[in-house]
Amino acid sequence: MGLVPAAPAHPFRLEGSGDGKEVVILGAGLAGMAAAYELDKLGYRCTILEARERTGGRCWSVRKGATNEETGGGLHTAGFDAGQYFNAGPSRIPHHHGLTLHYCKELSVPIQVYNNVNENTYYYSEGKGPLSNKKVRVREAHSDVRGWMAELLAKAMDGGKIDVEMSKEDTLKVIEYLRAEGGLDIDKLYKASARRGYSESPGPGDREGKIGEPMTLLAMLQSGLLDPDFYNVAEYTYELQGTLFQAVGGMDRIAAAFEQKVGRLIRMGSEVRHIRNLEKGVQVGYKDKTGEKTMQADLCICTIPLPVLSNIDHNFSSDASRAIDSIVYMSTGKIGLQFKRRFWEEDEGIYGGITHTNNQLTQIFYPSYDYLGGKGILIGYYNFNEKAVATGNLTYEQREQLALEKGSLIHPQYRQEFERSFSVSWHKTKYNMGGWALYSADERQTLYKALLQPDKQVYFAGEHMTYLNAWMAGALESARSVVAALHSRVTGQRFSYPVFGS
Amino acid sequence: MGLVPAAPAHPFRLEGSGDGKEVVILGAGLAGMAAAYELDKLGYRCTILEARERTGGRCWSVRKGATNEETGGGLHTAGFDAGQYFNAGPSRIPHHHGLTLHYCKELSVPIQVYNNVNENTYYYSEGKGPLSNKKVRVREAHSDVRGWMAELLAKAMDGGKIDVEMSKEDTLKVIEYLRAEGGLDIDKLYKASARRGYSESPGPGDREGKIGEPMTLLAMLQSGLLDPDFYNVAEYTYELQGTLFQAVGGMDRIAAAFEQKVGRLIRMGSEVRHIRNLEKGVQVGYKDKTGEKTMQADLCICTIPLPVLSNIDHNFSSDASRAIDSIVYMSTGKIGLQFKRRFWEEDEGIYGGITHTNNQLTQIFYPSYDYLGGKGILIGYYNFNEKAVATGNLTYEQREQLALEKGSLIHPQYRQEFERSFSVSWHKTKYNMGGWALYSADERQTLYKALLQPDKQVYFAGEHMTYLNAWMAGALESARSVVAALHSRVTGQRFSYPVFGS
Repeated sequence: MGLVPAAPAHPFRLEGSGDGKEVVILGAGLAGMAAAYELDKLGYRCTILEARERTGGRCWSVRKGATNEETGGGLHTAGFDAGQYFNAGPSRIPHHHGLTLHYCKELSVPIQVYNNVNENTYYYSEGKGPLSNKKVRVREAHSDVRGWMAELLAKAMDGGKIDVEMSKEDTLKVIEYLRAEGGLDIDKLYKASARRGYSESPGPGDREGKIGEPMTLLAMLQSGLLDPDFYNVAEYTYELQGTLFQAVGGMDRIAAAFEQKVGRLIRMGSEVRHIRNLEKGVQVGYKDKTGEKTMQADLCICTIPLPVLSNIDHNFSSDASRAIDSIVYMSTGKIGLQFKRRFWEEDEGIYGGITHTNNQLTQIFYPSYDYLGGKGILIGYYNFNEKAVATGNLTYEQREQLALEKGSLIHPQYRQEFERSFSVSWHKTKYNMGGWALYSADERQTLYKALLQPDKQVYFAGEHMTYLNAWMAGALESARSVVAALHSRVTGQRFSYPVFGS
Repeated sequence: MGLVPAAPAHPFRLEGSGDGKEVVILGAGLAGMAAAYELDKLGYRCTILEARERTGGRCWSVRKGATNEETGGGLHTAGFDAGQYFNAGPSRIPHHHGLTLHYCKELSVPIQVYNNVNENTYYYSEGKGPLSNKKVRVREAHSDVRGWMAELLAKAMDGGKIDVEMSKEDTLKVIEYLRAEGGLDIDKLYKASARRGYSESPGPGDREGKIGEPMTLLAMLQSGLLDPDFYNVAEYTYELQGTLFQAVGGMDRIAAAFEQKVGRLIRMGSEVRHIRNLEKGVQVGYKDKTGEKTMQADLCICTIPLPVLSNIDHNFSSDASRAIDSIVYMSTGKIGLQFKRRFWEEDEGIYGGITHTNNQLTQIFYPSYDYLGGKGILIGYYNFNEKAVATGNLTYEQREQLALEKGSLIHPQYRQEFERSFSVSWHKTKYNMGGWALYSADERQTLYKALLQPDKQVYFAGEHMTYLNAWMAGALESARSVVAALHSRVTGQRFSYPVFGS
């Protein structure tokens, strides 16, 4: 209760000066650029080496002309119309990620609500049980399962079958609550309610509306609608609880805002080849279009994702090296599908939100922007683990075919309205090689801890150095945390960023 | 399942011409203006009589200089800063109100998401039970009650105490579902989870986060958190299920868009004094600032709210007259509170959504617009029935005091940051005299039906002539419905608007 502490939502203020110390930062993703932005304010001389010709890393909105390179996949170029985009990386900002919201404010990036839960999207169970291949509205599943569960418990409590250790009066109050929760009738029976929607809408005159027939619990169960494939996946998780936001015009507007501040410090197209702690300072070797280069700096912040760093020559400690080589990243992929018109809105009343399915697509994301507009891009799948590996193993054309074939089961309009696609398989993407770091509880105590302290002159930063994996907040919190640690070392003062290093 | 029928989301197309027939429309709210807009397209000559000097009726956003007049309350003028506003009337558009969204599109009114469910708002139980006067985050209440209920049912099912009429295997699946639903541990016990939020947020380095302690079921029960005052009121209702929208810049932008189309047909400041069906046509007497007037027309559409119409002289049938005099409207009120800064966002991470309380405020609405902005207006209370009557009986100054006193219990920042207020008590507001029509099931069969057919040359329209009471969709659906009926009569063709009159 009370105020749950949130990340500080204020400008970062540390005392003392970096006094011209040189810091080389590896990677111009959010962590690298945020670190440079804060260090630059403190009087450090920063250089950012970025392998790509763009900033942002995983904070990437795919637009016309965007390119990507996957292992064995060649260069892939987006042919979307001007003005169309989808967020290939993070697409949501939880309201409790105060630091992400703070930087949006500090850097003047407008935000808008990301509409994560939409009761009008679908659960689509392919080839399973009595509800196989039927489009079940989320509201129908929600209302029916709540109804059936509340009925079971209310009847059992009413029949004295539950040991609740409370007075008869309190028990009756719980039963009343269950009636409200489940939409039960006066006899504590679930017989559907307006909550599950109408087969005929209420309207003017004598149009009082007809409530749909409920699905049976057994049918839902047998079709897997109570499996984690569907139920509550997108709603109850702390990070997915509303209010959620997104940057207006694409999440890459956040990266672009940082780039505007630190762009002068970035050497683009500079692929790191080696990182070497020297007795004093650090040496970094990199390759750009003019050839192999080396540079030296007093200190280094390395934000390179670990599966990429694992293939870069370095002289880190054996503990750090083991961690870098061992930590596993999420396999995950998305495809953006551009359509001639927003049929999901026009024909089906779906404005934002997510359709869940048990097939390889896993999810379809509807855009939470440009409502009532003309064209639009759906995220045709957003999948994980084995499903993402299998999808990633397909060619770009095969992924498009898969998305269209499976998606057409849910939206037959796909065939008529489709224009073009662009897919990203993050675990195969050069310079990323994964979605985000995955840790077991054990690994948090061993591998993770080995990277928490700097390896001599090299500090590790990025979402993988936090408990906020996969979130932009991880990159940003990590950046501030490392800046505080580095600045403590340089000034001899003790700057503690909440908990880290304190 | 399948596509739930929604209101037609297309331009209204009826064949044939109104051929210059004269229609007088009483009231320039959404129903009156929408009817005029459609009739005008069909070649009718429309005149709208509007008592106020503004259009929109209950579709009203209170801005600097807005005025209102309540019974016994005198003229009340809003002193908000320029650019600040709150929606005194409807503030939400459900995604399934296709006709409202359609008119937004047809009339180029931009929309944005209205953020109804925010897990970071509060339940505040004043003076009741162990959680009395504590700020409980909605996520905490949601997670804990789901956890405790799922635990009760899972244990009972596991112990064979529930007769579920399903196989052992299916029973185990339900138990697995309950574990996921409730966030239970492997032993089917609820011991809190990250879903209820953190007492210490996860972050970088070794900041793994601390999960808060759950509230007991008994404490929640005794503090009334499972009463309808709080739980699920705002979430499960069909009309309040996301996606919800609002007009960008204030809901009155919808009224303004209609006004732009039919403004030339409106006689403002024209208070209707009598409505008289003649042998042919209809006579309407009204008073404007130059004096008493009468006008005649072939047909009339009367959108005047029934409690107002009840005090206007007319010669309707006794059945219609009885209905007009008997149908009860909701007592309801809102207060807008302008603050110097958005402390609910800056200090408490609350972006939109609703805080629920058992005291007279009932609800506090946080604005779903201008996030991260400077000043802002909260809706300090939005109450109903007895609470609204009691609040309405206060002076404007006393209402402000009440809102500040009770609101300060939840947000102590109120005292420091408050600037000015404006309150509306709809059931005391001249030309409205109520929030919306309330019908019992019985009244739908008697009183309501008496108004469904025109009384000679007079058609009744407005939200009160629908099963969409309180919603803008009611006004708009009713308008189209009445236009279809009127046009059928004039042309001798049969135009049926879904169900009505067919």
